[in-house]
Amino acid sequence: SYGADGRISSRIFADYSIFKGKAALSATPVLPTFSKTDSGYTKVDRRGAIMLTFRPAIGERKYDSEKKQLFALSVTEIGSFISLGPGDSCEFYHDPSVMSRDAGQVRKSLSIKPHTDGYFVSLNVTNNILKTNERFTVPVTTAEFAVMRAAFSFALPHIMGWAQSTNPQADSFGKD
Amino acid sequence: SYGADGRISSRIFADYSIFKGKAALSATPVLPTFSKTDSGYTKVDRRGAIMLTFRPAIGERKYDSEKKQLFALSVTEIGSFISLGPGDSCEFYHDPSVMSRDAGQVRKSLSIKPHTDGYFVSLNVTNNILKTNERFTVPVTTAEFAVMRAAFSFALPHIMGWAQSTNPQADSFGKD
Amino acid sequence: SYGADGRISSRIFADYSIFKGKAALSATPVLPTFSKTDSGYTKVDRRGAIMLTFRPAIGERKYDSEKKQLFALSVTEIGSFISLGPGDSCEFYHDPSVMSRDAGQVRKSLSIKPHTDGYFVSLNVTNNILKTNERFTVPVTTAEFAVMRAAFSFALPHIMGWAQSTNPQADSFGKD
Amino acid sequence: SYGADGRISSRIFADYSIFKGKAALSATPVLPTFSKTDSGYTKVDRRGAIMLTFRPAIGERKYDSEKKQLFALSVTEIGSFISLGPGDSCEFYHDPSVMSRDAGQVRKSLSIKPHTDGYFVSLNVTNNILKTNERFTVPVTTAEFAVMRAAFSFALPHIMGWAQSTNPQADSFGKD
Repeated sequence: SYGADGRISSRIFADYSIFKGKAALSATPVLPTFSKTDSGYTKVDRRGAIMLTFRPAIGERKYDSEKKQLFALSVTEIGSFISLGPGDSCEFYHDPSVMSRDAGQVRKSLSIKPHTDGYFVSLNVTNNILKTNERFTVPVTTAEFAVMRAAFSFALPHIMGWAQSTNPQADSFGKD
Repeated sequence: SYGADGRISSRIFADYSIFKGKAALSATPVLPTFSKTDSGYTKVDRRGAIMLTFRPAIGERKYDSEKKQLFALSVTEIGSFISLGPGDSCEFYHDPSVMSRDAGQVRKSLSIKPHTDGYFVSLNVTNNILKTNERFTVPVTTAEFAVMRAAFSFALPHIMGWAQSTNPQADSFGKD
Repeated sequence: SYGADGRISSRIFADYSIFKGKAALSATPVLPTFSKTDSGYTKVDRRGAIMLTFRPAIGERKYDSEKKQLFALSVTEIGSFISLGPGDSCEFYHDPSVMSRDAGQVRKSLSIKPHTDGYFVSLNVTNNILKTNERFTVPVTTAEFAVMRAAFSFALPHIMGWAQSTNPQADSFGKD
Repeated sequence: SYGADGRISSRIFADYSIFKGKAALSATPVLPTFSKTDSGYTKVDRRGAIMLTFRPAIGERKYDSEKKQLFALSVTEIGSFISLGPGDSCEFYHDPSVMSRDAGQVRKSLSIKPHTDGYFVSLNVTNNILKTNERFTVPVTTAEFAVMRAAFSFALPHIMGWAQSTNPQADSFGKD
């Protein structure tokens, strides 16, 4: 599997990060991968996501990347996120080991709950093997949430592969 | 007639699919085709659509592609779809044989009706020649509907040909 | 002055047309033109518009292009258009001969007024020289208006030149 | 540091300007710059902004560029701007000398306050060194604000670097 341009390319990396007292939250789009079918056309192999990264604070505007925890928002979870009205809340559950021997051992839940100015975005990670339970909570202001909503809405068609499939030029790149 | 880049290209294919108990619903954008006029400029030949595909369930997460039914949402029907408010409903009627000898023999109707969390999207196909009547209903959650609304809104200018006509680069491709 | 790609190119043409009983209404984006400054950078020379074309009906789905009337929506008028709420109305006045000897002789007014399902879009052209007064009214449904709103919103940054100025590639094309 | 296409390019310049009785307000997107990391990928070096320029009126539709004042809206301030509801207001404070010897000597504040048709956008610049205090107020109509909201929303992913990172083609340009 390869990128829409037909090769594994050196990528441009851009995130949106919010640094708060107890933790930092970063969001970055992950593009889908594509593969060629026997009939000669290119199709989405693995859909993209919005990758959320939480890092705990370890001092004045310093955050511990060693202790980071990830949560990949799927296309439909992004749909939930961008359609949240004021006062709405939502919660998503992921099992990173689903379909494997360790299914159910690690549980991640992401919750978005309203507060006075914006939302609390919290990640809870329970690991039954390591007997650990980590929790990150980042208060996101209305303005920061508006940036995330706009950026996630923009990224959505790219994550789904629709931006690539509707772009007449992307295709010719697949032939290189 | 050819694509905006001046040739019939191998395409990238990406859909958005919802798998539910009784049926699966997939949506994918269909781009317009273009043709050259005598005066030398390129114009839309056939407008694009959002192609909806319904397939009946035939087991645990298995769907029968042999029995699929299609419904191509036109530009104005997409306008109706993306402007649906909470609690709104709409219905579209297509005759795949319109303007032919078999006009009126096959009738397709697509209805979108609100439920507690989202909409029921139903396709009804009545075939007077084969004496058949098929009905598919897929419950679409609010989050899934938000994905469709965002993806259809993104695709709309590409389906209308406006993304191609406003893209300064697309044009030079028409000269190859 | 030239296009964003540095040449006067053969263009792709795509409109959105609504055919009604008494008149047809077509909308199409008009891109800005660019010119090179002495300091070597490229700037917008003439801003773009959404060109509205009205043609009177002269039979069953036949419209008279000889008697067409044009109205070019400016960037700010497009802002008015796309922010119209349900039940809102607006009106724009143009003088095609402004700043010339014939200023005030021809007056065009475009009005958008709500009706049960959508809006009435009317163009009134008063020509004091020819002693004529023409009026076109096209009922636009909510779904058709949603298409126009989405298409005009998409086209707006292209019409303003922002799509060209934020596209890192458009620029290199100017060097051919 | 360089542009997303791997070089410092001659740029296309496009703004949106509002000319009013006492002052003119112009807005233009400023793209981020990128740099190559040791690991070989490209990342955002300095995030972009929407640059607002205020110029005082010095006659009939004449404005004094010598006396212009700038205010660069950050990504999160743009989020605030585009999510302003009718009747909402907001205010941002910048110190152009923050982290330097002159910190606190110059203070800029931008306020957006509702009026009957739209908003008053005001910039206040207090310079303790020069003992000056300048104030610009530009009434922005609802239609003009709708243009700004749409244009700022369009520009946001470009300013954040997400448009560049999700564009499969932008990357290969970095290799020239």
